[in-house]
Amino acid sequence: MQSFPQGHTGPAGSDVLVIGGGIIGLVTAWRAALRGLRTAVADPDPGGGAARVAAGMLAAVTELHHGEQTLLGLNLASAERYPAFVAELEEASGQDTGYRACGTLAVALDADDRAELRELHALQLRSGLTAEWLTGRECRRLEPMLAPGVRGGLRVDGDHQIDPRRLATALLTACERAGVVFHRARAERLSVVRERATGAVLADGRALTADQVVLAAGSLSGRLAGVPDDARPPVRPVKGQVLRLTVPRPYAPFLSRTVRAVVRGSHVYLVPRENGELVVGATSEELGWDTTVTAGGVYGLLRDAHELVPGLTELPLTETRAGLRPGTPDNAPLLGPTALPGLHLATGHYRNGVLLTPVTGDAMGELLATGTLPAAARPFTPLRFTTNARPVRQEQPA
Amino acid sequence: MQSFPQGHTGPAGSDVLVIGGGIIGLVTAWRAALRGLRTAVADPDPGGGAARVAAGMLAAVTELHHGEQTLLGLNLASAERYPAFVAELEEASGQDTGYRACGTLAVALDADDRAELRELHALQLRSGLTAEWLTGRECRRLEPMLAPGVRGGLRVDGDHQIDPRRLATALLTACERAGVVFHRARAERLSVVRERATGAVLADGRALTADQVVLAAGSLSGRLAGVPDDARPPVRPVKGQVLRLTVPRPYAPFLSRTVRAVVRGSHVYLVPRENGELVVGATSEELGWDTTVTAGGVYGLLRDAHELVPGLTELPLTETRAGLRPGTPDNAPLLGPTALPGLHLATGHYRNGVLLTPVTGDAMGELLATGTLPAAARPFTPLRFTTNARPVRQEQPA
Repeated sequence: MQSFPQGHTGPAGSDVLVIGGGIIGLVTAWRAALRGLRTAVADPDPGGGAARVAAGMLAAVTELHHGEQTLLGLNLASAERYPAFVAELEEASGQDTGYRACGTLAVALDADDRAELRELHALQLRSGLTAEWLTGRECRRLEPMLAPGVRGGLRVDGDHQIDPRRLATALLTACERAGVVFHRARAERLSVVRERATGAVLADGRALTADQVVLAAGSLSGRLAGVPDDARPPVRPVKGQVLRLTVPRPYAPFLSRTVRAVVRGSHVYLVPRENGELVVGATSEELGWDTTVTAGGVYGLLRDAHELVPGLTELPLTETRAGLRPGTPDNAPLLGPTALPGLHLATGHYRNGVLLTPVTGDAMGELLATGTLPAAARPFTPLRFTTNARPVRQEQPA
Repeated sequence: MQSFPQGHTGPAGSDVLVIGGGIIGLVTAWRAALRGLRTAVADPDPGGGAARVAAGMLAAVTELHHGEQTLLGLNLASAERYPAFVAELEEASGQDTGYRACGTLAVALDADDRAELRELHALQLRSGLTAEWLTGRECRRLEPMLAPGVRGGLRVDGDHQIDPRRLATALLTACERAGVVFHRARAERLSVVRERATGAVLADGRALTADQVVLAAGSLSGRLAGVPDDARPPVRPVKGQVLRLTVPRPYAPFLSRTVRAVVRGSHVYLVPRENGELVVGATSEELGWDTTVTAGGVYGLLRDAHELVPGLTELPLTETRAGLRPGTPDNAPLLGPTALPGLHLATGHYRNGVLLTPVTGDAMGELLATGTLPAAARPFTPLRFTTNARPVRQEQPA
């Protein structure tokens, strides 16, 4: 079933060891196990990670950025995969993932915002995407809670959402049912024998061996000891603070789709779940490993959200939390083999980890089972940062 | 030792039963026990109540309001009692209460604020209080974190603070050491026999008897079943939302005294503890029994605090909470006997519960032991609302 040499497996050995049990590590492990590979995951708290904080927007179209057309292709492919992926995962886990095909409305609050949104619209149309320009009045007709000052907006019916906590829990169950073994400890050091990754040593002293190792530890992926410099993922933590409000039943539905805007240069979005949770995100801060919820972070989110949807002042504020996105130099993920044989990466998903979960699982499952990274994932090889290949963001639109 | 008829005590009987184990109930029970009375407290969670939320300002001078000169007298008496009270309580409990003689600075951010603060200053001087007017520059010299826009302020060196949570815990320990018996259940109904209060029935079905009953259940005091209409305390819940930030060591001391202001009509205060906690309060909302922390409440507090001390955006936001002040028609407490023999009140302390804890304990201890309410407390008799006596707030300044 696989093209890599055997011989490293033993009592603590497996075909595949995934370091990191966030949604990316879990989907990788699940897909590997479904391919018949004996798979283990090392994580002190599987199902945790940035997905515990993320809002779960599947925003391939509204999060389009200039110069990221290659990433757009992957994002769109994953968005398209989502309904089938969710159906399969819900069947395998017996759990609801909170997937909601609700669409998104991106609005402008002043003339500058409107100009920026118009430019995004033009870029979307040039990229062959579907987005409809609405007047302020049309926006408010769709979402009556919007501020009277909304000047216009973009209706994107294809950008949906999922509940990332439910997604993580469902993936965990699906992994367990598929026979994935969980080692609930932090991986401290990559084991390397004769210039080949052979497993990892855990914080509790256990040594795990595996034919293939996948480093999927999100923003922490660059910190694993024992990884040679030329295989070390160039990820950095990008802090995001997120609030969770609750929509009491008498106020429901409050919002019927994801609403987002740029307010004075900072992005704010409101993601309404069917269970009444309303997620408000997110700050973007380069502060290292800090995950403190700050007065300023919460203030800024509430201020911007209040400007967008004034009526939310009445809603209970039920949670404040910060997480770390794994940023990369070109904002695109790191998928596939590294310069060190036996070591693969599945990390660096930055703002798109939830969106990219299905295609990441597909690509990593294929790689682990056949030794070949599918064509769609090849632009995202980690080797682009260690060879002369160009970073993804520098590629031009088709 | 007491002038009330005996005979109601038994296995579940005592001389005094205090309904409610917040700081007012506890200080009453402690003082009664020190007078040699067998004392019991009924509360599902003694040491809880509004003091878990309160900031703990001892602000007799800065919280002076027109028309509340009688209350001012009680407030000042209690502020004066505080150092000796704290010394006795810390000795009795073996615990630190976080009392801090740090003073208060009340500042103005715009011309309207300044005019209002000038008027408060004039009222303070007419009332014989000590408060010094400072320019904006002088304010910032005292507290360098203040916003550059501060227009002036009042330095009140006599308005201190205490940590209400520590106060509650110390009172609980002092009560236990003094032999107070705790019944950890909610009192559901006052027992009345032959037009005299004789105890209470608890939610777990137990019937407690006592010669004297003190109703000290804060905003809940009006809800106890079995209290005749003419003895029922006219208290209502006034919701306050409060934030707790943390000052990391490198930022300390950040603020060295309590800083407060009126920002666009709403009061905001910042109370810095020596342990690094920075309390930001408080909303004032008439919403019944609702204790929800809302997006709008937190937003308003952060907005106003940020306007006052912009640098606090960097500080961790560690707690958000709402509590219920026991408001009364004249904003003054209800202390002493009711129209129902055997039933006393110690409630309705509104914004001043922490400040008034020492004198409340003194007054209630004296009343319970001797049958006579001390002169200082007599203007606050509950009978002012059931007879022709005038409410406290209508008395004029001396």
